[in-house]
Amino acid sequence: MASSKVQIVEMGLRDGLQNEKVILSADQRAELALRLSRAGMNRIEIGAFVRPDKIPQMAGTAEVIQKVQQLVQQKNISAKTEFSVLVPNEKGMQSALAAGVREIAIFASATESFSQKNINCSIKESFQRFMPVLPLAKKNKIKVRAYLSVCFGCPYEGAVPEKRVVELVKRFHKLGVYEISIGDTIGVATPGQIKSLIQKLKRVVPARKIAGHFHDTRGMALVNILAAYQLGIRIFDTSIGGLGGCPYAPGASGNVATEDVLYMFEGMGVKTGINLDQLIETHKWLSGVMGKTLPSRVGNVGRLQARGPVT
Amino acid sequence: MASSKVQIVEMGLRDGLQNEKVILSADQRAELALRLSRAGMNRIEIGAFVRPDKIPQMAGTAEVIQKVQQLVQQKNISAKTEFSVLVPNEKGMQSALAAGVREIAIFASATESFSQKNINCSIKESFQRFMPVLPLAKKNKIKVRAYLSVCFGCPYEGAVPEKRVVELVKRFHKLGVYEISIGDTIGVATPGQIKSLIQKLKRVVPARKIAGHFHDTRGMALVNILAAYQLGIRIFDTSIGGLGGCPYAPGASGNVATEDVLYMFEGMGVKTGINLDQLIETHKWLSGVMGKTLPSRVGNVGRLQARGPVT
Repeated sequence: MASSKVQIVEMGLRDGLQNEKVILSADQRAELALRLSRAGMNRIEIGAFVRPDKIPQMAGTAEVIQKVQQLVQQKNISAKTEFSVLVPNEKGMQSALAAGVREIAIFASATESFSQKNINCSIKESFQRFMPVLPLAKKNKIKVRAYLSVCFGCPYEGAVPEKRVVELVKRFHKLGVYEISIGDTIGVATPGQIKSLIQKLKRVVPARKIAGHFHDTRGMALVNILAAYQLGIRIFDTSIGGLGGCPYAPGASGNVATEDVLYMFEGMGVKTGINLDQLIETHKWLSGVMGKTLPSRVGNVGRLQARGPVT
Repeated sequence: MASSKVQIVEMGLRDGLQNEKVILSADQRAELALRLSRAGMNRIEIGAFVRPDKIPQMAGTAEVIQKVQQLVQQKNISAKTEFSVLVPNEKGMQSALAAGVREIAIFASATESFSQKNINCSIKESFQRFMPVLPLAKKNKIKVRAYLSVCFGCPYEGAVPEKRVVELVKRFHKLGVYEISIGDTIGVATPGQIKSLIQKLKRVVPARKIAGHFHDTRGMALVNILAAYQLGIRIFDTSIGGLGGCPYAPGASGNVATEDVLYMFEGMGVKTGINLDQLIETHKWLSGVMGKTLPSRVGNVGRLQARGPVT
C-alpha cells in the first residue's frame, strides 16, 4: 500500500451546480470557491466554458474566476488552490486562456449513446473536438485532466465493456493528459466492478494518474472509493454537500459528498489536508444559499458531539 | 479470506419498525415477514416482547408470529426462515416460549449512559435482567443471540473504549450466546475503527460468532460492512428499505438498507441466498404501507435498466 494520503478534487462548483435547478450568482460561486479553498481544498474545478444557453448554471465562469482572484488578493490568502475549468472545445479553451486558468479538463463518454445524449456527437467526434485544445494547452503550460463518463454502466446501453473503457483511457493517456478521472456517472458500480476495472487500467496507465469519480446514486460511492483506495488509487472527485447529479442520466442523484469522503478517510487515518469542520460550516452556509437540505450525511449530522454522561 | 457467502439478518420488523412513527397492524407485519421470507431471507427478527405502553410498535408480536405461521401453512411455503424475537427479561422470555419461537435475542449497552437512557438501568443490572432468560433458553433449546449497543460511539459519553467493548463481548460469549451483534447504534464508525475493534474482538471470540450491526447515520454503514467483511465477518444486520433509527440516539437515521447491502454483495460475487428483485418489489409495497419514501437508495432507484441505444 502506498502513502496514506489522498487528493480530493472538488466538483461542487462544476459537476455539482451544473446539475442543480437553483442558479447561483458569480458572487455566490466565488464565495463558495473561497470557503472551500480556505478549508484546505487545493484542487477545485470552478466552472465550465460551455454554452450559457445550454447550461445556464455555468454562465459567468470567467467572472467567478476573476472574483476569486480579487478576493484572494484582498484577504491576503495564500493561494495554494489550483482552480480548473471544464472546456469542451477550442472556443472554451480560448475562454479558459483569457481567464488565466492554469488547468483545464476535457471529457468523453465510454458509450456512443451517452455521448450522443450528452454532447450530441459520437465518441470519435468528441475526441476531434478537443484535439485543437491540447497544443494550446501545451504551448501555454496548462495542465490537462480528462474525464471518461459512464465507465461502469450507461442509462441507454446498460453494461459497458471494460475493454472499451481501457482503450479510451489509453487513448487519453497517449494524448498526454496528466490525469484521467474514471466516472461512474450513474452510480451503478460496486466494489467488484471497481476492482476488476482498476486492475486492468493499472496495466495501461500508472495508478497515480487515475482518479475515481463515483456518483452516489445507489449509495455505493463510498464503498467504491474504499475499494479503489485499496487498489492504490489516491485521487477522488467529490462535491461539497453532495451537490448535483446528471440530467442526462435518469435516476442519478449526484456526486458523492466531500464531507462524507473526508469523514471516512479521517477515521481511517488517511490525510487529505482539508479541515472537515470548516467544510461542515460551508455545508450549512451553502444549504442556506441553495434554499434546501443537501444530501451529505456528515454535513447534516456532523461529527459525534457527546452530550455528557447520564446517571 | 473465508467463503464468499454472507448471512443477512433482517431487522426491519424489529429495530426498523420499533423506531418508526407509523404503527403497522399485526396483519401488515405478518405480510412483510412473509414477503421477506419468500425473497429468501432466512433470518428475520420479527418483533419484541417488550412493554406495549413503552414501545407500541411492537405490541402484538405474538399475533404476528401466529399469523405468519398460519400463512406459511396455508400457502404451503417451505419454512426455511428462522424468526427470532427480542426479549429484555424473564417475562419477555415466557412470552417468547408461549409464542413458540426457536430463537431470541438479548441486549446490553457498551456505555452506562446509553443503558440508563435506553432501558433505565446500569449495564450490570441489564445483565442481571436476562440472567434468568438463559437457563430457560437452554432448557427449551432456544438459540440466543446478543446485541451490544453503542460499541463505537455514544451520544452521551462520546468515544467508547475498545477495552470495555471487548470485555462485554467476552462476557456474552461466556454466557453461551451463539452470536454477538456489534452495534454502531448511532452510525459514527469508519473502516478505521471497525478494523481496530474487530481485530481485538477476534482474539476473544471466533469471527463466525460476530455480526456487524452498523447504522447509516453518517452514510458509513456499507463501507463499514465491507471493512468487516474483509476481516472475515460474515453476518450483517440490515433493515428492509432502511426502516428505523434509534429514538434514544439523537441524529441516528436508522439501519442500513437490506437492498443496498445485497446490491453491494451481489456486485462483489458474494452470495446471500436472497432475491434482490423481490426485495425491491417488497420495498415498493412497504413504501405504500408506510405512506412515505424509504431511505434505501437501491430500493428507490432499482438496478440499472438500459433504455436502449441512442444514435
